Amino acid sequence: MIVELVSTGTELLLGQIVNTNAPYLAARLNELGFSVLYQTTVGDNRDRMKSVLQSAIERADIVITSGGLGPTQGDITKEVTASLFNKSMYLHEESVRRIKRFFDERRLCMTDNNLRQAMMPEGALIVENTCGTAPGVITEDQASGKIIINLPGPPHELAAMTETSIVPYLQEKFGIQGAIVSKVLRTYGLGESALEERIKEYILSQSNPTLALLAKNGEIHVRITSRAADEEQALQLIHDLESQIRPLLQEYIFGTGEETLEASAGALLLNRNFSIALAESCTGGLVSSRITDIPGSSRYLTGSIVCYSNTVKIDQVGVAAETIADKGAVSPETAKEMALGIKNKFQSDIGLGITGIAGPDGATPDKPVGLVYIAVAGPGGVVCHEHYFNGTRTNIKHRTALAALNHLRHYLTGI
Amino acid sequence: MIVELVSTGTELLLGQIVNTNAPYLAARLNELGFSVLYQTTVGDNRDRMKSVLQSAIERADIVITSGGLGPTQGDITKEVTASLFNKSMYLHEESVRRIKRFFDERRLCMTDNNLRQAMMPEGALIVENTCGTAPGVITEDQASGKIIINLPGPPHELAAMTETSIVPYLQEKFGIQGAIVSKVLRTYGLGESALEERIKEYILSQSNPTLALLAKNGEIHVRITSRAADEEQALQLIHDLESQIRPLLQEYIFGTGEETLEASAGALLLNRNFSIALAESCTGGLVSSRITDIPGSSRYLTGSIVCYSNTVKIDQVGVAAETIADKGAVSPETAKEMALGIKNKFQSDIGLGITGIAGPDGATPDKPVGLVYIAVAGPGGVVCHEHYFNGTRTNIKHRTALAALNHLRHYLTGI
Repeated sequence: MIVELVSTGTELLLGQIVNTNAPYLAARLNELGFSVLYQTTVGDNRDRMKSVLQSAIERADIVITSGGLGPTQGDITKEVTASLFNKSMYLHEESVRRIKRFFDERRLCMTDNNLRQAMMPEGALIVENTCGTAPGVITEDQASGKIIINLPGPPHELAAMTETSIVPYLQEKFGIQGAIVSKVLRTYGLGESALEERIKEYILSQSNPTLALLAKNGEIHVRITSRAADEEQALQLIHDLESQIRPLLQEYIFGTGEETLEASAGALLLNRNFSIALAESCTGGLVSSRITDIPGSSRYLTGSIVCYSNTVKIDQVGVAAETIADKGAVSPETAKEMALGIKNKFQSDIGLGITGIAGPDGATPDKPVGLVYIAVAGPGGVVCHEHYFNGTRTNIKHRTALAALNHLRHYLTGI
Repeated sequence: MIVELVSTGTELLLGQIVNTNAPYLAARLNELGFSVLYQTTVGDNRDRMKSVLQSAIERADIVITSGGLGPTQGDITKEVTASLFNKSMYLHEESVRRIKRFFDERRLCMTDNNLRQAMMPEGALIVENTCGTAPGVITEDQASGKIIINLPGPPHELAAMTETSIVPYLQEKFGIQGAIVSKVLRTYGLGESALEERIKEYILSQSNPTLALLAKNGEIHVRITSRAADEEQALQLIHDLESQIRPLLQEYIFGTGEETLEASAGALLLNRNFSIALAESCTGGLVSSRITDIPGSSRYLTGSIVCYSNTVKIDQVGVAAETIADKGAVSPETAKEMALGIKNKFQSDIGLGITGIAGPDGATPDKPVGLVYIAVAGPGGVVCHEHYFNGTRTNIKHRTALAALNHLRHYLTGI
């Protein structure tokens, strides 16, 4: 089956936003065995959208649109789809109720233009939007057997709808044979080329499963994808290759799939029944925030102090004034006292202390922007790590957060 | 002039990479006054690429391709372009010399397949690649007057070539007069549909300047774009429309261009010479982290306490145990005591207290997931705001951070 992706929205034509929906859908559809041969982007213009959908439906079996399901005058994708299949539009009462409920739950009043989102092509399948107001639509043309699927533009709405409704629909409709299964090994601490060197022979000799390296926000993801008659066999293929690769990457692998560094560290804390407290200077609370992105993190995070000023480092965290005077606020000694101080102050098992120069200001001849000290204190004693990061202020904060979570992880696995 | 962007590369169809070339070129071309009406992506397949380029050149005056200029068998964009205009290919000696020099300078030996990159359509303009080996190509079809421009796929090569050669070529060729200027008004607190209602007449009657609404991570951006003989006149047109729109959006506009809510709030703190301290529960340090994303925030952020546990709320922030016992940790009373407590503890001018239920657990019959209280304390007294957010745990944290920064902004402008 040939699929064409049609992304709509003048903001795409103006280059105001990057299109992440198309690669997401393309990757997902390829996993299912569909061939995505064309991707087209068109603005919120009736005639041009219609001609684009026209040629798309001629060269593809399935056309999936994203965007243009919203409440505004510019949202015309459903109307154009309906007109292409000579279907009229009607007000879908259940969608009206859902949209009204959406606003009620948020204590918001609904403006009438929101009802546009409940107008549907005659005879179409309506797909619930669990993350927003605009439902998705699946319209099948009996005559040609072609299908147009309208999805909302916001990436999280589109992804949720794809996973919960569209993928099952396609599998059911086209009785997809066999299974394509992927597993991602998430690594931190090795560069892409260094990692590639370690598993080069497997990358060069790959067939089924296939291996792909993906650099992502300071992590490197190793993606293993296998095809087999059924899921069990596909998983077995992945398991076999994974067991050969893991020894080569060892401690650099911190998780699989969607598991983040904070999830991995959190699981270790739970597993050892340890609580943690943080004293953050240059990261300004970012590491605590990432730790609390994990549901149930209240079971191990006691709390944190963002000690931006030296006064707070001294009065609230318990760093000795002399240490800051003699060694400086950005020093291994201060980082260690921050880790120990917060641990004692909050009566936690583990203390994490982070101090550094995020820039652009604050550098000295011997302490450049990007110099960061990360200390971990706990039953295993107190250890401190020095880093030299580069990039913008937010880059440095991000890199520091990853490093801190990874040091925490190693500290916990080491005791 | 109508432009179509054609991105080539199977890795795009497989969703392995996100296409950043298209938005970059689209934004740049729109600035120059060209209308980018279509963007198409196709793989490294001769027949499909030719049919895509065929329809592109029929509906557009200029087609700009990216990718497929490299040395491998899969790099066919130039050949397909040439065949479309019935031109033969020849070996461009100057390009051969450039490519050889590129390898010599890097002490690398050049494999013969690199010479593919010097094969050019008869009569085409050759564009030097200052960042890589593959030259760009501009092919003009005398008969139709249509133009196909082939650019390399690597984003930094494409961008460098665009700025140094393609933009000047287009300006020269089409004698581009005048200036196109854009200004973005960033708003928070109004939904897209509600905001559109307020400025509907301007959206419907737009011509020059044009108005575009763009929902972006919980904010709505209003983009005003004007064209005029020179920049001064273009800016005047923007100023005139802006002065009509601003009264309709009033306090919802928090900044322009790249100015974030944390930058806006930070500027107000500096301006009033106020320091701030935060007590964050459900946001886990996210608001402090965003505040510290701004360079120089150490001048107003004293520090923060992430008070995840009630013990920390009571012992460290100074919330009364009775308040938590009687009203609950998630209550306006607790939020207010957090704001006042941290203000006193850290001796700051402003105190911000945030408590809520980020979920997925922790909800009670009368306190659903997404219920959040945000309190601001300072010279203007203490105020508390109630919110009902939805979405995932991280969505709720993000929405809460935006709301907190916005309440802070309003509090500061109000005193």
